[in-house]
Amino acid sequence: MSDNQTEISSLGEFGLIERLTRDFPLRNSSTIKGVGDDAAILAFGDNDVLVTTDLLLEGVHFDLHYVPLKHLGYKAAIVNFSDIYAMNGEPRQITVSLGVSSRFTVEHLDELYAGIRLACDIYGVDLVGGDTSASTSGLVISITCLGEAERKDVVRRDGAKETDIICVSGDLGAAYMGLQLLERENVAAAGRGSDFQPDFSGKEYILERQLKPEARKDVIEALRANGIKPTAMMDISDGLSSELLHICKASGVGCRVYEDKIPIDYQTAVMAEELNMNLVTAAMNGGEDYELLFTVPLADHQKIEEMKGIRMIGYVTKPELGCALVSRDGAEMPLKAQGWNAFTPHD
Amino acid sequence: MSDNQTEISSLGEFGLIERLTRDFPLRNSSTIKGVGDDAAILAFGDNDVLVTTDLLLEGVHFDLHYVPLKHLGYKAAIVNFSDIYAMNGEPRQITVSLGVSSRFTVEHLDELYAGIRLACDIYGVDLVGGDTSASTSGLVISITCLGEAERKDVVRRDGAKETDIICVSGDLGAAYMGLQLLERENVAAAGRGSDFQPDFSGKEYILERQLKPEARKDVIEALRANGIKPTAMMDISDGLSSELLHICKASGVGCRVYEDKIPIDYQTAVMAEELNMNLVTAAMNGGEDYELLFTVPLADHQKIEEMKGIRMIGYVTKPELGCALVSRDGAEMPLKAQGWNAFTPHD
Repeated sequence: MSDNQTEISSLGEFGLIERLTRDFPLRNSSTIKGVGDDAAILAFGDNDVLVTTDLLLEGVHFDLHYVPLKHLGYKAAIVNFSDIYAMNGEPRQITVSLGVSSRFTVEHLDELYAGIRLACDIYGVDLVGGDTSASTSGLVISITCLGEAERKDVVRRDGAKETDIICVSGDLGAAYMGLQLLERENVAAAGRGSDFQPDFSGKEYILERQLKPEARKDVIEALRANGIKPTAMMDISDGLSSELLHICKASGVGCRVYEDKIPIDYQTAVMAEELNMNLVTAAMNGGEDYELLFTVPLADHQKIEEMKGIRMIGYVTKPELGCALVSRDGAEMPLKAQGWNAFTPHD
Repeated sequence: MSDNQTEISSLGEFGLIERLTRDFPLRNSSTIKGVGDDAAILAFGDNDVLVTTDLLLEGVHFDLHYVPLKHLGYKAAIVNFSDIYAMNGEPRQITVSLGVSSRFTVEHLDELYAGIRLACDIYGVDLVGGDTSASTSGLVISITCLGEAERKDVVRRDGAKETDIICVSGDLGAAYMGLQLLERENVAAAGRGSDFQPDFSGKEYILERQLKPEARKDVIEALRANGIKPTAMMDISDGLSSELLHICKASGVGCRVYEDKIPIDYQTAVMAEELNMNLVTAAMNGGEDYELLFTVPLADHQKIEEMKGIRMIGYVTKPELGCALVSRDGAEMPLKAQGWNAFTPHD
């Protein structure tokens, strides 16, 4: 690195975004909230329009040695839908841009689009545009999703209040352990020739969580049906620790979450044991769970307790108490965002 | 290519998009028009929301040997704004996603964003989101732009009627000749060491058209001020021939355009002469002009004639007459989309 030049990895993804976007004023009355939540909030008409976008690069975000193209297309769409649900909105439209190198055929792209189409069918979303071009290096997928929500329903990440209960849907760490398994078997297969078929029995759940995640539309609907509007919400893409810190920073609060409350599936635990990895670290920092993390007023305690598949994992505190994980023996460890950093140098 | 596999280049960009998007039904009432125009048209509230997206890949769409990062940022934003103006709308918000390899520093990205910011300042657009990650190969830029238009004002590409006049703003072929110049000087510089400074005097206009194009907000405003609503409109990104064919196909009409009416700048002509290239081919197929191509009813003839910087280049015909360029000697040549094809194999 030459003089006076700053390596991007020294800032991290969030530091970089903050630096690059800080000097952009918002001047259109339709722009309600720009950078800094799961989706931007725009006011066109009576409802709010939500906009989110994701860029997926081969060799950084996915490895086609073990990710089928149809699954990749499905997941690429789902991760965008998840950001819209995390604002308490409904995904409506996507644009899909592709960069494609010459090792891909039309049939490969048919597979990719079959996955995108399946996601659109299941979640009721329309494909409305995109851009397609050649690429000099592998596959590039950029998806933007527009969603809609009644103005009063939108949930940001900055509304968590002291004494709110912290909740999470589903279970955590499974997608990460699925990735570890796929990477291990991919290395093993490379050493044993192309006939080698790994045995994934008893590990179907963690594989599905990695290869074919779902967006929690059902949780949004259940919350609505139970008359609960979260005070803050995010989807868990970078890991529970990272997202909790985002909510607490944006809301100006602290938090306590309990290790023994973190929901973890049996297969996740077995795989961590097999790979000799720390289970709680995987659940807190693994990421790609696409579960919903949200806070609700203490008064909703009873309602939440009766909801299937939602776990109360802690509570919101005064900011000066900081953010900590409380271990089984009562010790407090400060939360750290050890989420996956896509700025490890590559070339 | 193995059995039963189709090379992407055999379909071309538009054929590929048609194939990939054909099985996607539109199911949301807010989706008015999906794939197939400069931008998608969505109905959120009383106004229409327009959405367009562009993916730019290093080594395919730009070469950093001769494109300064600030110019690249400016142009990446402008090409999206241009698509919104081409629908007779106003750009309002953009999201910017970046993939960045480790040879780029934070200061490089500051430059890129300075260009994006300048474009946003001039055109009154808000940056509202994006995604940032590492890349294994160079720079990837994906920009999505949202625009707004009163429902009655939106102009699609499918409304051209027989006897309409075909109009174009500005002049054509300059950006293409600017690219030829930059490529020639880049090759020359490579052979003469790093101290070599090319002499661009007398060629400033074609360079600016390539490196720092503008979106024709002014033309949209002038048309409105003069009470003219085009029957069909597109921006010229792939070349006049290609865009004319799009309008005629979508509108179910034919056209005649006159070689001697095509607006061409003096510097474009000189450069074509110098490089021994066909000037009309450059103007018809060069692309990246970001001028507006539109059709107006014959009754608007007088009004258009009085507008500065708008040229009437031909007229719309019955579909059975096809699409043709009429040469200076009266000969008719069928229009062909020889636009830049980004599906030349690369790796």
